[in-house]
Amino acid sequence: MTDEVRRAWAYLSRVAEPPCPGLTALVAQQGPVEAAGMVKAGRGDSDLLSRVEARREFDCAADDLDVLDRMGGRLITPDDEEWPLLRFRALRGDKELKRRHAHPPLVLWAAGPVRLDEATERSAAIVGTRAATAYGEHVAAELAAGLVERDVTVVSGGAYGIDGAAHRAALACEGTTIAIVAGGIDNPYPSGHSALFHRIRQEGLLISEYPPGTAPGRLRFLTRNRLVAALSGATVVVEAGIRSGAANTAGWAKAQGRSVCAVPGPVTSAASVGCHALLRDGAHLVARAEEVVELVGRIGELAPEEAHPTGPLDQLEPAEKQVYDALPARGTLTVDEIAMLAAMAPHQVLGPLTMLEFAGLVESVDGCWRIVRGRRAVPRK
Amino acid sequence: MTDEVRRAWAYLSRVAEPPCPGLTALVAQQGPVEAAGMVKAGRGDSDLLSRVEARREFDCAADDLDVLDRMGGRLITPDDEEWPLLRFRALRGDKELKRRHAHPPLVLWAAGPVRLDEATERSAAIVGTRAATAYGEHVAAELAAGLVERDVTVVSGGAYGIDGAAHRAALACEGTTIAIVAGGIDNPYPSGHSALFHRIRQEGLLISEYPPGTAPGRLRFLTRNRLVAALSGATVVVEAGIRSGAANTAGWAKAQGRSVCAVPGPVTSAASVGCHALLRDGAHLVARAEEVVELVGRIGELAPEEAHPTGPLDQLEPAEKQVYDALPARGTLTVDEIAMLAAMAPHQVLGPLTMLEFAGLVESVDGCWRIVRGRRAVPRK
Repeated sequence: MTDEVRRAWAYLSRVAEPPCPGLTALVAQQGPVEAAGMVKAGRGDSDLLSRVEARREFDCAADDLDVLDRMGGRLITPDDEEWPLLRFRALRGDKELKRRHAHPPLVLWAAGPVRLDEATERSAAIVGTRAATAYGEHVAAELAAGLVERDVTVVSGGAYGIDGAAHRAALACEGTTIAIVAGGIDNPYPSGHSALFHRIRQEGLLISEYPPGTAPGRLRFLTRNRLVAALSGATVVVEAGIRSGAANTAGWAKAQGRSVCAVPGPVTSAASVGCHALLRDGAHLVARAEEVVELVGRIGELAPEEAHPTGPLDQLEPAEKQVYDALPARGTLTVDEIAMLAAMAPHQVLGPLTMLEFAGLVESVDGCWRIVRGRRAVPRK
Repeated sequence: MTDEVRRAWAYLSRVAEPPCPGLTALVAQQGPVEAAGMVKAGRGDSDLLSRVEARREFDCAADDLDVLDRMGGRLITPDDEEWPLLRFRALRGDKELKRRHAHPPLVLWAAGPVRLDEATERSAAIVGTRAATAYGEHVAAELAAGLVERDVTVVSGGAYGIDGAAHRAALACEGTTIAIVAGGIDNPYPSGHSALFHRIRQEGLLISEYPPGTAPGRLRFLTRNRLVAALSGATVVVEAGIRSGAANTAGWAKAQGRSVCAVPGPVTSAASVGCHALLRDGAHLVARAEEVVELVGRIGELAPEEAHPTGPLDQLEPAEKQVYDALPARGTLTVDEIAMLAAMAPHQVLGPLTMLEFAGLVESVDGCWRIVRGRRAVPRK
């Protein structure tokens, strides 16, 4: 990328509040340098010109690129191999998404050693409320650790609470994590997470569609959320209040055809109300990382079934159960007594007793029968 | 009911392990007295005779009825007005249920002032693991209290843990509760709940399809569970391990076309694993009694929506949000500065600013604009 092209991208990134589909279309048509020249000169259609009017004479591309370079960052443009074209497919095509002003970003400001396209081939977002409980942070960390262990990138928004717990656990397990922030990556919000963001820049990837120095705002958080969903195969909401940005991200995931997952929690916890609403609305209930991997993983990669303990008694036939139930916890019974208690004919009791004896569940003593305590049964086929 | 008829019912109740559809059919055809005579005399089809062979010569009906009378109890038979005919409809008709040996009871042994048919017109089962956590017992009690407050009978199995918490809360709120036990009502299991059972007999209803003195067994618990589900419009599982009788009751409820509900809990809690499995399997997620009432209640009785707080900012138009977002938390900006930050033309900023001022969200000071702290907004239509 020549300096001229880079400066054009940087200028275009700031000249309109993203996402600005008119500007994206102009750049796709004319290339960034020509598009930047047209915007600066006030040429183009009136709708686009009104979107850029406030900032078109204000060019701080060189300064922005200086900040980026000092951070060791890079611009990721649609012309780069790193551009996650497939991940942005839904944002490019879907009418309903367009109606909701969801469009692909024009360009991304990025810092970190991770390649965006590769890292998001197999990725899941872990998001949730800033007002997380100890339970929520614990589950977020467990899920993140389990995901990176299975080679899944953990995407989140870098916020306090669930987001931070997910990023931290991913880093602690030497996994890949991507933070997508709603302002400039030079001073990512919240500043209380500056040490965490520093680590993400060193070991993962910090990205934004906003140029350096941009302050995050309400709208920008919501706009950013569409990218969190877009860059993830599944979005897992760990804790969310009844009004939560995480539910917004889940909405973007659903609109883009991605899996929406929610972690249940105590019904007494306000921090789980949003998750329960998502579950009622059809979100996947997830408790373990494996269940998320199943949704983002390669085809055929299924979560192993949860261990389902079965005892020898589970394998009994109904008549055997009836006979076994008739035997007292302690003491012995005759066949006739068993028959009476089990409400079976004496000759019907003998077969089941033999099978139970063979299974090691009962034994006969002096012509009477009793339960074998400890039940170390011979497994049956 | 004559003494002869009562004795016939009592004899028939014990002569075969319930449910015994062949016996039920014979009684429906011949009446209880004639049916009892036939069974005692060894007449009838061979299948039925093998079911009654062990006990048919053993008649302790008079003793059983003595025990019942001393308890102040009664037999509830299909000939009584109190028999909950509609509640047993699914058990009478459904083929799949028949395959699973689910049939209506022959007769019920009952003690308590509550009328079974009336109490189960509007009823919900609250069931769950005996190994309940403090969370589970709390939620069971809250749900039971909320249900009886809304005139819904709380049905359960009288066990330790969730069952007990539900019965106790229903009684504490002076509501109606029914305990269905898997053995005789003269010595209901578990004996550690004898004080609770005593209160249920005084104020609610204690029932069983087993005659006095019958000990509960594994099979009988499972058989009993079909009645818990049958006598309830919805079954709510509050906590259940991965193997739990509560899941069995939920299965019966589903098979009978009743609503199955589950309460979510922490994914870190083994006592909620069964509930989460039910939720994955399509159970209704419930957190509050109102949501259960909706499922068992009269038609048109819907749960009120959970309070959904909205602030003045939620009602803003996109352009107003964009302008509001551009204003700093502290300090003032000129219209041109706002336009630049919001990426809007200065003339586009004026309308939104006026609306924001009208809503009490911003104010102008010496030609500049700032956010009004405290946001006591004028409500908009």
